[in-house]
Amino acid sequence: MPRVRVAVNGFGTIGKRVADAVAKQPDMELVGVTKTRPNFEGTRAMEKGYPLFVAGGGDRAAFAAAGLPVAGTLDDLLGQVDVVVDAAPDKVGKENAAIYRAKGLPVVFQGGEKADVAEASFSALGNFANCLGKRSLRVVSCNTTGLARAAAVLGPHWGIGHWEATLVRRAGDPAETARGPINGILPTFQLPSHHGPDVRTIFPDLSIATTAVVVPTTLMHVHVNHVRLQRAPRDADEVLSVFRSTPRFHVFAPWEHVDGTPQVMEYARDRGIGFNDMMENVLWENGIRLDDRDLYFFQAIHQESIVVPENVDAIRAILRLAPDGATSIATTDRALGLAPTGRPSR
Amino acid sequence: MPRVRVAVNGFGTIGKRVADAVAKQPDMELVGVTKTRPNFEGTRAMEKGYPLFVAGGGDRAAFAAAGLPVAGTLDDLLGQVDVVVDAAPDKVGKENAAIYRAKGLPVVFQGGEKADVAEASFSALGNFANCLGKRSLRVVSCNTTGLARAAAVLGPHWGIGHWEATLVRRAGDPAETARGPINGILPTFQLPSHHGPDVRTIFPDLSIATTAVVVPTTLMHVHVNHVRLQRAPRDADEVLSVFRSTPRFHVFAPWEHVDGTPQVMEYARDRGIGFNDMMENVLWENGIRLDDRDLYFFQAIHQESIVVPENVDAIRAILRLAPDGATSIATTDRALGLAPTGRPSR
Amino acid sequence: MPRVRVAVNGFGTIGKRVADAVAKQPDMELVGVTKTRPNFEGTRAMEKGYPLFVAGGGDRAAFAAAGLPVAGTLDDLLGQVDVVVDAAPDKVGKENAAIYRAKGLPVVFQGGEKADVAEASFSALGNFANCLGKRSLRVVSCNTTGLARAAAVLGPHWGIGHWEATLVRRAGDPAETARGPINGILPTFQLPSHHGPDVRTIFPDLSIATTAVVVPTTLMHVHVNHVRLQRAPRDADEVLSVFRSTPRFHVFAPWEHVDGTPQVMEYARDRGIGFNDMMENVLWENGIRLDDRDLYFFQAIHQESIVVPENVDAIRAILRLAPDGATSIATTDRALGLAPTGRPSR
Amino acid sequence: MPRVRVAVNGFGTIGKRVADAVAKQPDMELVGVTKTRPNFEGTRAMEKGYPLFVAGGGDRAAFAAAGLPVAGTLDDLLGQVDVVVDAAPDKVGKENAAIYRAKGLPVVFQGGEKADVAEASFSALGNFANCLGKRSLRVVSCNTTGLARAAAVLGPHWGIGHWEATLVRRAGDPAETARGPINGILPTFQLPSHHGPDVRTIFPDLSIATTAVVVPTTLMHVHVNHVRLQRAPRDADEVLSVFRSTPRFHVFAPWEHVDGTPQVMEYARDRGIGFNDMMENVLWENGIRLDDRDLYFFQAIHQESIVVPENVDAIRAILRLAPDGATSIATTDRALGLAPTGRPSR
Repeated sequence: MPRVRVAVNGFGTIGKRVADAVAKQPDMELVGVTKTRPNFEGTRAMEKGYPLFVAGGGDRAAFAAAGLPVAGTLDDLLGQVDVVVDAAPDKVGKENAAIYRAKGLPVVFQGGEKADVAEASFSALGNFANCLGKRSLRVVSCNTTGLARAAAVLGPHWGIGHWEATLVRRAGDPAETARGPINGILPTFQLPSHHGPDVRTIFPDLSIATTAVVVPTTLMHVHVNHVRLQRAPRDADEVLSVFRSTPRFHVFAPWEHVDGTPQVMEYARDRGIGFNDMMENVLWENGIRLDDRDLYFFQAIHQESIVVPENVDAIRAILRLAPDGATSIATTDRALGLAPTGRPSR
Repeated sequence: MPRVRVAVNGFGTIGKRVADAVAKQPDMELVGVTKTRPNFEGTRAMEKGYPLFVAGGGDRAAFAAAGLPVAGTLDDLLGQVDVVVDAAPDKVGKENAAIYRAKGLPVVFQGGEKADVAEASFSALGNFANCLGKRSLRVVSCNTTGLARAAAVLGPHWGIGHWEATLVRRAGDPAETARGPINGILPTFQLPSHHGPDVRTIFPDLSIATTAVVVPTTLMHVHVNHVRLQRAPRDADEVLSVFRSTPRFHVFAPWEHVDGTPQVMEYARDRGIGFNDMMENVLWENGIRLDDRDLYFFQAIHQESIVVPENVDAIRAILRLAPDGATSIATTDRALGLAPTGRPSR
Repeated sequence: MPRVRVAVNGFGTIGKRVADAVAKQPDMELVGVTKTRPNFEGTRAMEKGYPLFVAGGGDRAAFAAAGLPVAGTLDDLLGQVDVVVDAAPDKVGKENAAIYRAKGLPVVFQGGEKADVAEASFSALGNFANCLGKRSLRVVSCNTTGLARAAAVLGPHWGIGHWEATLVRRAGDPAETARGPINGILPTFQLPSHHGPDVRTIFPDLSIATTAVVVPTTLMHVHVNHVRLQRAPRDADEVLSVFRSTPRFHVFAPWEHVDGTPQVMEYARDRGIGFNDMMENVLWENGIRLDDRDLYFFQAIHQESIVVPENVDAIRAILRLAPDGATSIATTDRALGLAPTGRPSR
Repeated sequence: MPRVRVAVNGFGTIGKRVADAVAKQPDMELVGVTKTRPNFEGTRAMEKGYPLFVAGGGDRAAFAAAGLPVAGTLDDLLGQVDVVVDAAPDKVGKENAAIYRAKGLPVVFQGGEKADVAEASFSALGNFANCLGKRSLRVVSCNTTGLARAAAVLGPHWGIGHWEATLVRRAGDPAETARGPINGILPTFQLPSHHGPDVRTIFPDLSIATTAVVVPTTLMHVHVNHVRLQRAPRDADEVLSVFRSTPRFHVFAPWEHVDGTPQVMEYARDRGIGFNDMMENVLWENGIRLDDRDLYFFQAIHQESIVVPENVDAIRAILRLAPDGATSIATTDRALGLAPTGRPSR
């Protein structure tokens, strides 16, 4: 099977992960990645053998001085591919859209862009079928992806009457050293927060209200959820069992002593996928409670990596490389080393 | 008017604040405080002129070696007072109860004890009248006090159908240097958390469900609230206006640029009450939203000080020093320098 | 005695403290303070009764909308005073210098400006005599003030052969919520750091080399010092005894259980000066060691407040309000509530 | 070549890394690892196929309940191996020593034990030759290993007159969520700190004095070093060049924009060795300065992993599997994927 040729424009937190994920897929070829200036992440591109192109008015001489070989410009790269993943910083994707359009290239954008940047917003478990053959898709943000995945599980099984979620957000990524706060909690003064409407770009009829605070941690977000279901599950175990048997969910058992996000990340380091990534929604057996139709549960979201497999699936939706979401997800996850479904209960 | 004689047993985070607050009341006399071992907080007692007694099997020689004069033992102190405030560490209050009972002394306990330590749980705005003349009261914990105060406002005005709150909790107090996490979020694996039932020790019929996470900050808790009211307020301003006109609420305006708990604490330092204390529930004008009967609001709770005026009022309830809560609160707050009601809107 | 009239231009972290300090001095009158935009700190100015003037192209309408009465502009204020303290953000003082010069006003700058902003750099214990009658002085920065004070003690007593200090710096002030890092250590890639040369603006012949790292805390800096003295003290107690008997040094004893900066700040809250300020260099009895002529000691520096009394003394030096540093320091510290010398040993 | 059979007693932060490292060596076989209770790290052992034995009075039923198959007890494991690496918590190694002695098993201890636990303390670059054929070795702690490696470079090339280091220590490992401080700096009230004497267990004649502070971060330690050399290098580049050409040193260039430990750890995630480990001493080109014979430099130490290759080399020293340190280091590092020497300058 000829592999589709993929460019990743931007090689930061998301771009470097998507590049790795694409390079591992059986039906894709990573043609190159771009950077605007040399830094330690460029070393990684070189060591992985990813051709490096200069984007955004970057200075080739700076790369030469750093000893990082450059294969050309973004323009050169775009001429060699079938599809581009835009992993530029927030709002820059919007600017890049004109470039891709001029080339007639289909594109996957990230959730830092507004929804109108693309023909549709995308979640692999949520709306793959609706996205088949689109020329542009926007993978929703990390928090929205986490909510959309859970909605894709709960809705079909029991119906969602109404959902309330408080998002306890990490203040910055691990290597973002100019962000704060160092000590304090910052409420997000938008009530409800924008995450609810963003989930409705995937599930237009979902009744959801979200609130958010920012806290001084770098590892993961934690969602505190209360969902009023339309039909009562038999018990919490039934709900857990469905989460466990759905790809991209990971449920920790009490005996594992995973007290919070630090231990989740330690588990991820133990597991050794990617950059200690945890691409699944993380739940806890003892972090779920059902009172008739009222479901409460915590989920932790690894902001750096949760959208990575979604980007791969979005490529397949655009290029019709898979007939449905389940097929794409299975291919993606096998290549990434993720369990085909959540781990079996013990 | 003869002043009632008060002992404060324990001189840590809560005890030292209650001692100051008692010393400032027109109808109370602080007879002494206790410590079990010398440390820098003992210096404060000495400099304030608070007689220092040794409790809990403490070693008088250690105090002598530190140059801290000691007036006697807990037993000596208890013989000289009309009432005792127990500010011992969590669970130690329960042990102390027998001592107070043997002396026939009325007592105010803290919220770290279980509800059955006292005849009733107490919140000044919540149930002062029910507590008049009790021999023992338990001031509910900081988070519960914050919730109970808000319930005491919302219930009478609009009726509370159901309340959901996510408590984003500080991991330790500023000087507790052996607690963590340093980087991470720890869900509280009790769904709902114990705070809801604890509020019902004040309002037995309240429908409330709470969830909690612990985050790496030392300053304040933040509550994210959604209250389904029974009757719709006219608009959010009406709600704000009621909060503003209730004692022990402080509402920040947008122009004040109070982005979160660090700026709240900076405001408190500017104001200069006590130890940079913020004894009020803190709300934000732009942190409240009303959709018909659905009220969303953030409130920040200063865990070190919010229960301090409540302890003073609990003494008055026990000894019938005030006919009702409003009278006691007005006396307490005037002595502490708190505004008689929230500040006027600007 | 007529009091000199003082303006404080800027009402942030330093300005609001200097304003309070000036207002408390027997020989000074605070005529007014300036702000560029309304925020919660403006409330404080109003509540303290400090006339508020608008600086830096600020918008008077914004103050009116906030309910903060404004007495005029910076220009109005400068016309009413004998001296101005510039507490504008770093580098803005340099821009303001032309304004003050045009008015012929003497001025005290802060250490965020380069040394050439003023006729001389200033440290009350260090070089008061040299600064008498200057038209402009620059109070050196918090870290430099801390080092200069210690040099002013060690030099005269035992001579300083060479000094090495590692400065472990706080990443941001408590209310600066946009600064990081949240988790990590950032070396200052300037070896030696600029602090050594800055101390030499006070002591030109001092042999000192400093290094620095930035760490995720908001409370205080900590200096790790190794000083090779020229003459050996008898023992560490002799050194401690001299520090204890010098104003603006505070030495904690082991029995106080002050394990680090969190407990120092808690002590400061207990003491209740200003905004929980600790204007002294903080040392520990068990944080000092002498090996013949080699002296090791830790000192903690409260970045928000250590320069506050220095600003007051700088005003006196400029206007010749005191004959020498010791006299000025004694007046300043009495007004601020600081101990005349370090506390007696116990 | 028959491979030596190795047991790793303890499967926490150090043990799980040493197990992986041993499993990768061409001349070693990992026979099994031990745990005392099931947790998420047990999952890792199972997934890696490491036979799991129960140590320390652990309960086999608890493992069975968790679905973790157990191969036997520590006693069973010790009967099957040629050497044991003790990776038990601090001080437990001392207790275990009697068990190993009874079995006549040679053993590698960790630096959390006192020096007298073993015949000699060990550093691969430092004193491999002296350790050949010993029955027990103690790999010195992370900070000491970092200092000893640097001493092993500087000493032979230029001679070390005297060394002063300030160790800025991380407060806890990433998954240790009960440790603090959250906000503050804690001086280590031992002057000089114990690290200097500990380095002298490797280099008995080294003149070194160390000081330490603890700061709220989980990632790495940073050492601030000043070494007075006995002979002047030509320039700083000569020193850098020697560090770069020594195994287990990694020097970052300015163009890499590695501002501190967060970016070092991000680089480590990019590189993908082990658990995002950085087993080398980390230096910066712009974090070094030479003034004649005075060398200043920063080095960052990854507390979780720096001793891992040292444990492997210690096994070789005990069993005489390599004739010298250089040979062992080359074998170890090739198997671990570490560069044979620091990376070439660019």
